[in-house]
Amino acid sequence: MADGVAPPSEVLALGPPIILRTKYEKQLSEKFRVLKPWESPLPLQQFLRTHARNTRALICSGAFKYLGAETLDLLPSLRLVVTSSAGLDHIDLQECRRRDIAVAYAGTIFSADVADMAVGLLIDVLRKIGAADRFVKSGLWPVQPVDESYPLATKLSHKRVGIVGLGSIGQEVAKRLEAFDCKISYQSRTKKCSVSYPFYDGVRELAANCDILVVCCALNDQTYHLINKEVLEALGKQGVIINIARGPVIDEKELVQFLQEGRIAGAGLDVFEDEPNVPSELCGLDNVVLSPHYAALTEESFREMYELIVSNLEAFFSDQPLISPVVLK
Amino acid sequence: MADGVAPPSEVLALGPPIILRTKYEKQLSEKFRVLKPWESPLPLQQFLRTHARNTRALICSGAFKYLGAETLDLLPSLRLVVTSSAGLDHIDLQECRRRDIAVAYAGTIFSADVADMAVGLLIDVLRKIGAADRFVKSGLWPVQPVDESYPLATKLSHKRVGIVGLGSIGQEVAKRLEAFDCKISYQSRTKKCSVSYPFYDGVRELAANCDILVVCCALNDQTYHLINKEVLEALGKQGVIINIARGPVIDEKELVQFLQEGRIAGAGLDVFEDEPNVPSELCGLDNVVLSPHYAALTEESFREMYELIVSNLEAFFSDQPLISPVVLK
Repeated sequence: MADGVAPPSEVLALGPPIILRTKYEKQLSEKFRVLKPWESPLPLQQFLRTHARNTRALICSGAFKYLGAETLDLLPSLRLVVTSSAGLDHIDLQECRRRDIAVAYAGTIFSADVADMAVGLLIDVLRKIGAADRFVKSGLWPVQPVDESYPLATKLSHKRVGIVGLGSIGQEVAKRLEAFDCKISYQSRTKKCSVSYPFYDGVRELAANCDILVVCCALNDQTYHLINKEVLEALGKQGVIINIARGPVIDEKELVQFLQEGRIAGAGLDVFEDEPNVPSELCGLDNVVLSPHYAALTEESFREMYELIVSNLEAFFSDQPLISPVVLK
Repeated sequence: MADGVAPPSEVLALGPPIILRTKYEKQLSEKFRVLKPWESPLPLQQFLRTHARNTRALICSGAFKYLGAETLDLLPSLRLVVTSSAGLDHIDLQECRRRDIAVAYAGTIFSADVADMAVGLLIDVLRKIGAADRFVKSGLWPVQPVDESYPLATKLSHKRVGIVGLGSIGQEVAKRLEAFDCKISYQSRTKKCSVSYPFYDGVRELAANCDILVVCCALNDQTYHLINKEVLEALGKQGVIINIARGPVIDEKELVQFLQEGRIAGAGLDVFEDEPNVPSELCGLDNVVLSPHYAALTEESFREMYELIVSNLEAFFSDQPLISPVVLK
C-alpha cells in the first residue's frame, strides 16, 4: 500500500470465545479484523460460506463445540486455529493435521490457577467453608451453637491424595498439596521419571489407596467416564473427589447417586458433563461445592491469554513459528 | 482402697469447653469425675464455693471468659488449668503463676488445621468460590453467562503475602503459600533465625509491601487492634486480609468501613471481636467469607485434643511432668 501500512489481517472468531466478552474484545479488534458470526443474522454455516472463504486464521474456545470436518469444510483457506483453552477436546486434531491446519493453545498458562481452584474446592469441601459462611451470614451463630449446627470438619493434612493425570495441572496440584503434608500418588498414561510419587497403572487401584481423588487429566477416548462406579466404590464412603478437568471424565449420573446415598463423602466440581446444565440433585447437596467452569477465569490469566492469542496470530501472519503450538501427531 | 482401685480424680470443667459438647464427654467422664457447673441450678460462683473448694484441676477453653483472680479466688486447691485451646488470652497467666497453678494448653496440635483454613479462606475470597457455588446452585448458569454474573477472580500465585506473627500457625501458612509461588514476608516480635523470609519490624510497613495479610499472632496487649486504620490504608484497595488468630487483633469497625467502601478488596474471617456476634454489615458483603471460629474444629484434631487433655490430667494426677505445659514467665 502507498503509505506502507498493511490492512489488518482477518481473524474469524467462533463461539464466541470468552475473551471476546471482556475488555480485550476492543483491543483485539484494533489489531485484527475480527469476524463475529454471532453478530450476524445469518446462520453460522451461511455466514462462513459468505464471509470466511478466504479466512486463514480463527480463534475459538471450549465454548464452540465442535470444530470438526463439517465446519472446516466451510473454511478452505484456514491454516491456523488458536484456542484460548488448555484442553483440546473441542477440536478434531486429526482433521486439522490432515488439512495442514496448525493449532495453537493456551499451553500451561492456566495451570497454576486451575490447581489453585482444585485446592480451594478441596479445602472448601473438607472444611465446610461454604456452610460456615452461610451459617454466620444468616445470623444463626448467636442463636445456635456451632457444634449443633453442622458436624465437625475433616482434616486435610496427612490425607492420601490421588492425582488422576499428572500433566502440568496435576503437577501443580501435587506441589501445593505436598505443602499441606498430604501423601501424593498418581495415575497417568505412563510413569513419570521426573517425580517420585507412587504410580498406579489403574485409576481403581489409585482410588482404593487414597482418601481424595483430584481429576486433572485431558478428556479423550481413553478418559471418557474413566471415573465410573467401580472407581467411586474403591474410593469409598470417606472419599472426596475434585474435578477441574472435564465433566465427561466422570460418569456424572453415578457420581450423583454416590453423593446422594452417602457412598462417597463429598465432591468439588468445576466441570460437568453437559455444561451449563448441572444435575439438579447436586444443587441440593451440602457436601458438594460447585463452580461454573471457572477455574481459569482470573484477571491475570485473562491478560496472559490475550497476549498469547495475539502473539500466536502475529507470528502466524508474519510467517514466524507459533508461540504455543499443539504438536499434531 | 480395698480392691486397690482409686476413686476417679475430680476435674472441674468451665465453659463448657467444646470438647464436652461432643462424643468425648462420655469418654472423659469415664476417666474422671467431671464437675459441670452449667448443669447445676446454682450460679457459677455459688457452685464453685459449694462444690469445688477441693478441686485440684480444671479444664476450659476460650469459651470461658475470663479465668482470672475472681474465679481463682473460689478455687483455693487448684493446681492445674488445662485449656483445650492454643490461644491463652482467656487465662490470667500472671495470676496462675503467682498462685503456683500450672497451665497446659493445646500447643501446636491445631496449627495445621488453622493454617489450612487460612489458605482455604484466602482462595475462597480471591477465587470467589462461595459466589460460584451460589451461582451454580441457584440454577442461574444456563440463563446468565458466567462473565456477566460476577467479575473475573484474582490469581493467587505470585502474590505478596505478609504473615503477621510467624509462630507455629504462621509458619504453616507460609509453608503452604510458598507452594502456590507466593512471595512470603512477615512481621513478628523478633526476627526469626530459622527462616529466610523478609522481616518487617512494623505491620504497617509489612502491609505496604504486600497484597495479602494473614493474621496469625497471639492476642495480647501488644497486638490488640494491631491491624488499625493505618495498616488497612497501607494494604490498599487491592489488598485482602485473612484473620484466623483472634478478633480483637483487628479494629473490626475500621475493617467493616474499609470493606464497605471498597478501600480494601476482601476479607476472610474466622474470628471476630465480640463472638458470636458478627457485625451485620459484614454479612451482606460478597467480598467477605466468614466462619464461626471454626478453624480448629476437625474430627481428627478433636481426637488429638481429647487425648492431649487426658494425658495432661493423668500426668498431673500421677505427679508426672505435663505433656504440653505453658512456660509461665
